[in-house]
Amino acid sequence: MSGSTHGTLFRVTTFGESHGVGLGVTIDGCPAGLKLDVEAIQQEMARRRPGQSRIVTQRKEADGVEILSGTFEGKTTGTPIGIVIYNQDQRSKDYGHIFDKYRPSHADYTFTAKYGHRDYRGGGRSSARETAARVAAGAVARQLLAHYGISIHSYVDQVGSIATGKDHHELDLGLIDTNDVRCPDPTTAATMEQEIMAVKKAGDTIGGVVKCVVRGVPAGWGEPVFDKLHADLGKAVLSINACKGFEYGSGFDGVTLRGSAHNDAFYTDEAGRTRTRTNRSGGIQGGISNGEDIYFRAAFKPVATIIADQESVNESGESVTVVGKGRHDPCVLPRAVPIVDAMVALVLADHCLRARGNRL
Amino acid sequence: MSGSTHGTLFRVTTFGESHGVGLGVTIDGCPAGLKLDVEAIQQEMARRRPGQSRIVTQRKEADGVEILSGTFEGKTTGTPIGIVIYNQDQRSKDYGHIFDKYRPSHADYTFTAKYGHRDYRGGGRSSARETAARVAAGAVARQLLAHYGISIHSYVDQVGSIATGKDHHELDLGLIDTNDVRCPDPTTAATMEQEIMAVKKAGDTIGGVVKCVVRGVPAGWGEPVFDKLHADLGKAVLSINACKGFEYGSGFDGVTLRGSAHNDAFYTDEAGRTRTRTNRSGGIQGGISNGEDIYFRAAFKPVATIIADQESVNESGESVTVVGKGRHDPCVLPRAVPIVDAMVALVLADHCLRARGNRL
Amino acid sequence: MSGSTHGTLFRVTTFGESHGVGLGVTIDGCPAGLKLDVEAIQQEMARRRPGQSRIVTQRKEADGVEILSGTFEGKTTGTPIGIVIYNQDQRSKDYGHIFDKYRPSHADYTFTAKYGHRDYRGGGRSSARETAARVAAGAVARQLLAHYGISIHSYVDQVGSIATGKDHHELDLGLIDTNDVRCPDPTTAATMEQEIMAVKKAGDTIGGVVKCVVRGVPAGWGEPVFDKLHADLGKAVLSINACKGFEYGSGFDGVTLRGSAHNDAFYTDEAGRTRTRTNRSGGIQGGISNGEDIYFRAAFKPVATIIADQESVNESGESVTVVGKGRHDPCVLPRAVPIVDAMVALVLADHCLRARGNRL
Amino acid sequence: MSGSTHGTLFRVTTFGESHGVGLGVTIDGCPAGLKLDVEAIQQEMARRRPGQSRIVTQRKEADGVEILSGTFEGKTTGTPIGIVIYNQDQRSKDYGHIFDKYRPSHADYTFTAKYGHRDYRGGGRSSARETAARVAAGAVARQLLAHYGISIHSYVDQVGSIATGKDHHELDLGLIDTNDVRCPDPTTAATMEQEIMAVKKAGDTIGGVVKCVVRGVPAGWGEPVFDKLHADLGKAVLSINACKGFEYGSGFDGVTLRGSAHNDAFYTDEAGRTRTRTNRSGGIQGGISNGEDIYFRAAFKPVATIIADQESVNESGESVTVVGKGRHDPCVLPRAVPIVDAMVALVLADHCLRARGNRL
Repeated sequence: MSGSTHGTLFRVTTFGESHGVGLGVTIDGCPAGLKLDVEAIQQEMARRRPGQSRIVTQRKEADGVEILSGTFEGKTTGTPIGIVIYNQDQRSKDYGHIFDKYRPSHADYTFTAKYGHRDYRGGGRSSARETAARVAAGAVARQLLAHYGISIHSYVDQVGSIATGKDHHELDLGLIDTNDVRCPDPTTAATMEQEIMAVKKAGDTIGGVVKCVVRGVPAGWGEPVFDKLHADLGKAVLSINACKGFEYGSGFDGVTLRGSAHNDAFYTDEAGRTRTRTNRSGGIQGGISNGEDIYFRAAFKPVATIIADQESVNESGESVTVVGKGRHDPCVLPRAVPIVDAMVALVLADHCLRARGNRL
Repeated sequence: MSGSTHGTLFRVTTFGESHGVGLGVTIDGCPAGLKLDVEAIQQEMARRRPGQSRIVTQRKEADGVEILSGTFEGKTTGTPIGIVIYNQDQRSKDYGHIFDKYRPSHADYTFTAKYGHRDYRGGGRSSARETAARVAAGAVARQLLAHYGISIHSYVDQVGSIATGKDHHELDLGLIDTNDVRCPDPTTAATMEQEIMAVKKAGDTIGGVVKCVVRGVPAGWGEPVFDKLHADLGKAVLSINACKGFEYGSGFDGVTLRGSAHNDAFYTDEAGRTRTRTNRSGGIQGGISNGEDIYFRAAFKPVATIIADQESVNESGESVTVVGKGRHDPCVLPRAVPIVDAMVALVLADHCLRARGNRL
Repeated sequence: MSGSTHGTLFRVTTFGESHGVGLGVTIDGCPAGLKLDVEAIQQEMARRRPGQSRIVTQRKEADGVEILSGTFEGKTTGTPIGIVIYNQDQRSKDYGHIFDKYRPSHADYTFTAKYGHRDYRGGGRSSARETAARVAAGAVARQLLAHYGISIHSYVDQVGSIATGKDHHELDLGLIDTNDVRCPDPTTAATMEQEIMAVKKAGDTIGGVVKCVVRGVPAGWGEPVFDKLHADLGKAVLSINACKGFEYGSGFDGVTLRGSAHNDAFYTDEAGRTRTRTNRSGGIQGGISNGEDIYFRAAFKPVATIIADQESVNESGESVTVVGKGRHDPCVLPRAVPIVDAMVALVLADHCLRARGNRL
Repeated sequence: MSGSTHGTLFRVTTFGESHGVGLGVTIDGCPAGLKLDVEAIQQEMARRRPGQSRIVTQRKEADGVEILSGTFEGKTTGTPIGIVIYNQDQRSKDYGHIFDKYRPSHADYTFTAKYGHRDYRGGGRSSARETAARVAAGAVARQLLAHYGISIHSYVDQVGSIATGKDHHELDLGLIDTNDVRCPDPTTAATMEQEIMAVKKAGDTIGGVVKCVVRGVPAGWGEPVFDKLHADLGKAVLSINACKGFEYGSGFDGVTLRGSAHNDAFYTDEAGRTRTRTNRSGGIQGGISNGEDIYFRAAFKPVATIIADQESVNESGESVTVVGKGRHDPCVLPRAVPIVDAMVALVLADHCLRARGNRL
């Protein structure tokens, strides 16, 4: 396997399993001289951390980030930033009952098919625990982007059938972290939270949609024809556990419009900048940013781990029952938000360096 | 720009603009000894070709493929396959009227923002003409995949609001190329064609959805965590002109289900193979193929070129009117089908070599 | 095989065999707005061209370069530059006598071992004819570098045992192209030419050393720890046919010195620039350019094609005699000079874009 | 900087400075199911470790390797192997006297030119301490190669002017680690050790040559035209600190031979295998292994840190004297041997996976 590296110039490589000794990430390519706020990295980790509220998994992980290299006197040096996060609450004995069983809609079978030899404890590398390393790297990328005035705002737009029903312009994105769901529409957030608690009580799980808005990306980022900006964003977001779909700008709804209703007219604003009157393009045209807000939506399926017994087979092909046990998230959406933020940051940091070179 | 290369082991690099001398592609990494059917490549080109029916653009291009290297005595040699396609019907004088104007929802502005110096004739590199090179490469990749029993079946599932409304199991995928729309549901295809002709008459355009089904991929392809199979497919498909969304398996609809209703139970079939009873996973679990059919849907926006006059600005920032002129597709969907086929083939060929090494 | 791409940001992909239809190269990543001198490209081709003088192979190739994309109104557009060169004088019937025989010290056996199916005509992809595509790409890279005041000066320093015996400071590098050998020391050049003619008359071949001096690279280029500037140069030069060794700065001779005699003392010159009093470092310290001249030497073995009969085996493992025939170079050095120039240009163009971003 | 990743399929990414918290490496792509001998990794570390004998630097580092991921029940899982090595004996106060001074022939000036912000303690990332991470990764690669019967034998062939003067066939490579110099010719080793001790007493340093022999590589590895096997080996070895030159097979000496004397005749051996009677090709023809022993030589300059006072400048451009202090190696050669072994292993592991796919 060599799929654990992301990016070309802002290049991130992760390692780590759910029940190994620890996780980590190397960030190679971060420009020198960036003031690095370690507290801010830890805060992003806290947003992803299990056990942060009653609507997420109760596994306890401090997720303390240790930086081993790449900084000196509080600033990046341009050399690789090595980060490790030790696992604490592995409880691997919890998994003895499923060691040779394939849990439905998990990656147990496919990892066995691919590798033969598999770490069966809690999903190993296929566990969402792996995303802790992404969030650490993303937090560094966000600081690089903030240096250039770019901010990323992911939030929960839908849980099951409960949706904000609002455009992002109608919401105050400053409210995202004011509730456990991370939905900036407080009334809808409350309903979502009730739904999640009901699902949890039923031993079941539920999916949803994360929306993301990026502000401040200048016109001109993106590398046609294969590395278009939205294609890179799509891949990065689709690589997150449980993500099943990605649409930007007008997305799937836009297919029913005619061109005359869909096109975004250009005008020159007061500052002399070329702007579009509408933004069905989602801030990207021909795969290159146009200076408008970039926005997209990402679908997340319900978590596969449920309490009910399920039909399955084991490694020998025998019929077995997978008995529900273990801690899990009733709804992955609140914790998916910082992961989407992180992946978007990784993509943009890479394109940032392509456009600007490796100097701050 | 260095975004014109796709893949790591089956590595494809394209060049060419809509109004330059020609297009081309280099395929580096195709295993030696593959019998290459040049006619089959030309047939794929014909499926993408402008002027093939009354519902597509009337630009005339023979799209003759010339293979310059990489084959000997009818077989691949393992060395790079160089292919060129000369442009014929450039008519670059058609574009004098828009040379400094930004056509709405085209890439004129973003290419100018990125590069400064732009070939304004017909979109240059941002034109869908670029995809001719992708289709040529994809046709080679399909022959490699066919060698391993893998087939790709893209089709038009929706045009505007007109959809088949059917699961792919309910359709005969052998019918895809029996009508100009490339919809394997003949009745719906007829309605779609009427809709496209009505839109064309109105000087307007319309979007739609392509669905793709892949058969024969064995369990075990995909490279977590960043190069998951569906993430690579998503990126490749999103890189096609006008594509705005991608969803696989249960996709966006799956978010409203509970885990207990969404999970795919495992069983062992008569042949002793591990199978799933349902396939909401879309043939991919944890980013790795599980041996079931892989399927996804891709949203395409309405083409930006329309006949009506539109508000815009020019390179000096002055308000201008873009007057509709030039040949264009009223609906990109029928010609998007072979391009989706091609991109899927490129992704799978790359994963094929990762799994099998570079020998047939 | 996927080894036909060079570089990350200035990315060059070649194709083509000695006896196929043609060769070509795609340059992806050349910044937009560079005035492209097509004549200068053709001149570099002429320096590498067979038949240019009596001391090189007499194969006749015009090596006319056709640019298919990536330029508009005489300037680069930032999109991939596609170049093709059609083969003319293939004479593939010349090779019937060796089709299943392994020529000693050629790549016939190793290509067969690797690929199974081989184009036996004149070496196919392993022929030095492949380097025509490199020179075309290198000529574009040299124009990019010239824009930044960087110049590359390769020359023949040694043929067999005949060497200039001079440091590059003692030579007038403007004289390189004033003789057929491309040695800027006219007296030595004459002796070298006599030696080559004697070797040719004997039906034999002879090796030599190319030296290269690069002027104008600013301090700060190179990417430790694996992509150090001299490591990238070494790889690029070693990838040229017949190259057996690479040394930069003090090279192999420097190993006998003590540190106190080898170190380059720093001082500040009149312009306030940090300089070194000596340059045993070869312009690179810690893998990063220091602003001094970069220089290195490259060893080329004698060409493997000779007129004498040689012992060998065929594909069936039977003992055979390889009978000398066909056109070939008695000494590869004069034609290696422009190829070294090209490879150095490709490496530096890539590092240039890393340091500066993708804008001129 | 993004030069800290090596390889495509066996992909290694390192981080760490001489005086940071620690070093580390991630190995992504090692096939699953490989029995991993952690003791053997630690032994390789011991061969590179400072303080191992009186002829190397006396810095004390245990160089204990901690594996955080990628193994389960003693075998690799196919997921990334994360390794960390904590620094112990940093003594960063030793470096206060040179914090803004450029040490001659070190990378202080070039790192400052490149990054602006530099970790001045002991060279930071440019210190050879960085190679500890390479050796850890290389030790894993060697175990993968051993699985396929491939062994790597680097040794010291020359120190200053003292050379074995022998071909590798004349030496017993089993003796390499029987003396502190790592020269398999005991008599020469003793003379070399005396020379190193004399140089050390003089507060000076001395260079030398490492030779490497690789046995067991099958015919067919290497990726022309840019990733030829010897070109990849050359780059990897040249990337080692202090390496100034690389030659394989007949190398620089071969340039004086005529082709008729240089060519390696083919024959079929008793086992029916295609072999060459001589091996001036160095086991590689046309960039692809031919099944013979691969061998090369690498030049290492004298270490730049010496005890004598030296002329230099500081970051403000003022003339200063660099006063010799700090621990250092009088001769880097004995410790370079395991680093060469490691880099060769990384290159071959990558080509191994290209040829065989990612399954053991």
